[in-house]
Amino acid sequence: LLACHVALAQNDPLPSWNDGAVKTAVTAFVERVTADGSSDFVPAPERIAVFDNDGTLWCEQPVYFQVAFAFDRVSALAPQHPEWKTEEPFRSLLAKDMKTFTANGEKSVLAVIAATHAGMTTDDFRQAVLDWIATAKHPRFNRLYTDLVYQPMLELLGYLRANGFKTFIVSGGGIEFMRPWTEKIYGIPPEQVVGSSAVTQFDMGADGKPVLMKLAKTEFVDDGSGKPVGINRFIGRRPIFAFGNSDGDLQMLQWTAAGAGARFMGLVHHTDAEREYAYDRQSSVGRLDKALDEAAARGWTIVDIKRDWGRVFAWE
Amino acid sequence: LLACHVALAQNDPLPSWNDGAVKTAVTAFVERVTADGSSDFVPAPERIAVFDNDGTLWCEQPVYFQVAFAFDRVSALAPQHPEWKTEEPFRSLLAKDMKTFTANGEKSVLAVIAATHAGMTTDDFRQAVLDWIATAKHPRFNRLYTDLVYQPMLELLGYLRANGFKTFIVSGGGIEFMRPWTEKIYGIPPEQVVGSSAVTQFDMGADGKPVLMKLAKTEFVDDGSGKPVGINRFIGRRPIFAFGNSDGDLQMLQWTAAGAGARFMGLVHHTDAEREYAYDRQSSVGRLDKALDEAAARGWTIVDIKRDWGRVFAWE
Ligand SMILES: [Ca+2]
Ligand SMILES: [Ca+2]
Repeated sequence: LLACHVALAQNDPLPSWNDGAVKTAVTAFVERVTADGSSDFVPAPERIAVFDNDGTLWCEQPVYFQVAFAFDRVSALAPQHPEWKTEEPFRSLLAKDMKTFTANGEKSVLAVIAATHAGMTTDDFRQAVLDWIATAKHPRFNRLYTDLVYQPMLELLGYLRANGFKTFIVSGGGIEFMRPWTEKIYGIPPEQVVGSSAVTQFDMGADGKPVLMKLAKTEFVDDGSGKPVGINRFIGRRPIFAFGNSDGDLQMLQWTAAGAGARFMGLVHHTDAEREYAYDRQSSVGRLDKALDEAAARGWTIVDIKRDWGRVFAWE
Repeated sequence: LLACHVALAQNDPLPSWNDGAVKTAVTAFVERVTADGSSDFVPAPERIAVFDNDGTLWCEQPVYFQVAFAFDRVSALAPQHPEWKTEEPFRSLLAKDMKTFTANGEKSVLAVIAATHAGMTTDDFRQAVLDWIATAKHPRFNRLYTDLVYQPMLELLGYLRANGFKTFIVSGGGIEFMRPWTEKIYGIPPEQVVGSSAVTQFDMGADGKPVLMKLAKTEFVDDGSGKPVGINRFIGRRPIFAFGNSDGDLQMLQWTAAGAGARFMGLVHHTDAEREYAYDRQSSVGRLDKALDEAAARGWTIVDIKRDWGRVFAWE
């Protein structure tokens, strides 16, 4: 794998990125911070790169994929919860009334996550995620959800790691939903995944074996100003490279930008309705409004998918 | 550094450990899980090793070193807090009345930490720790506190890393107190340090630069049953190797032991009053009672410092 990255780096490290200002901004930054004798040189241990997940590393439409997972969990658990027939957001989810569901935004998602991701052990939840991710299909593309990771971002992750960066996910999504598959799909191990979480409780089982029970209580929401808080808590160093795609990433980008020395702040702007989806200021999923303005004002890098990505998905 | 570890491994990887059952238990375990074709082979990414810090990697007597740091902070901040003259645990700390202070155990420590570690930015706190750790001296040994790390454990950390393990600290101590110096002293980077923490808050400064403020509110106590919770939250995989020294490590050891496949659970038993300190069941700092019984009953490895460590500190 390393040999592969080195070979790529000797040719074009980012073959799915079209030539242009955006691609050059990425490679010029990496060269500046890694070249011996560069005034912007950053020692390898401090080359921390953070990536939002939904809409940055993989697709997030028509709903966050974790919501699709929650759909299936809600359907499976519905017989034990007759009250869900009238109680939102469960009613709309069961009725596949996405318009109502998404109108409440993150709040609906978090309520469903709390209700469907609790009352089981962490090991059992992990297995439920693995079973789902291996079989469930995206409604438009009819492919596994993990086939909907962005090929240019996979190349970017590999390119950064080949240049001594340590890559992290910092996502509003559930930490226990991502960790079972991020190592295989992104090359990012569980211990480099930061996300939202529920409280877990250590219980000694009747068989003398301890378990961690997932409780229906939000512990941490890794979104908005929660992202720099999560970065500080889990990583303990300020990143020098950060990529997001929505207003939920603004504070993470501000926090990254406020450090000393060379910095890279990037946003993915979804502009390609044909190959993927086009959405920004008005979207209930992945709204990109304030962060788009601030990125433009401060000269952060904005990826225009239509213009900058020669290929969106690996299977295209 | 890697070359150094490899060289050590070719000779004796643990020169400060006396030959005997304990040293053999460590090396036999590492060989079992790393040898190709071994029925106990564990792939490198799953070789997660966790270490308690106080009393396991460095000395914790006569008080936790973070308490000594808090001493100095309390003294420095006392003029702004006249109420501390009568309010415990501040009164006893300012009077250097350690007996009263330690009688309340962890509670006193956490109260002082909350009061002295808050109301400043994470960056300012980090600098305060760095300044203190570079200058403060231990009352008995008259050496920097970082000179009181255990040489055999430094060798063990290096030996594990040379064998593909990823080493983590999982400590009841403050995460922001450890992170500024663990990379230099232990070779453990900030992102591999799990500890207790206070709530931090993202604030936009008047200069347009964001800061993270440390609040006087406990967020997480990484002790007892908090340790497996912290391991799950920060690392996201169950360790195969865990080392502690007190009852606060019992659940971490139980959690490690409950996984499938080969496992190593170790305890440091402080038995050498001449070279270090001797304490266990009656100690208010680092009490080792229930965990000592459970370790004996379940055949976990118990390091007897007097018997098993040829050298305790590097400078002996
Ligand atoms: Ca996103
Ligand atoms: Ca300890």
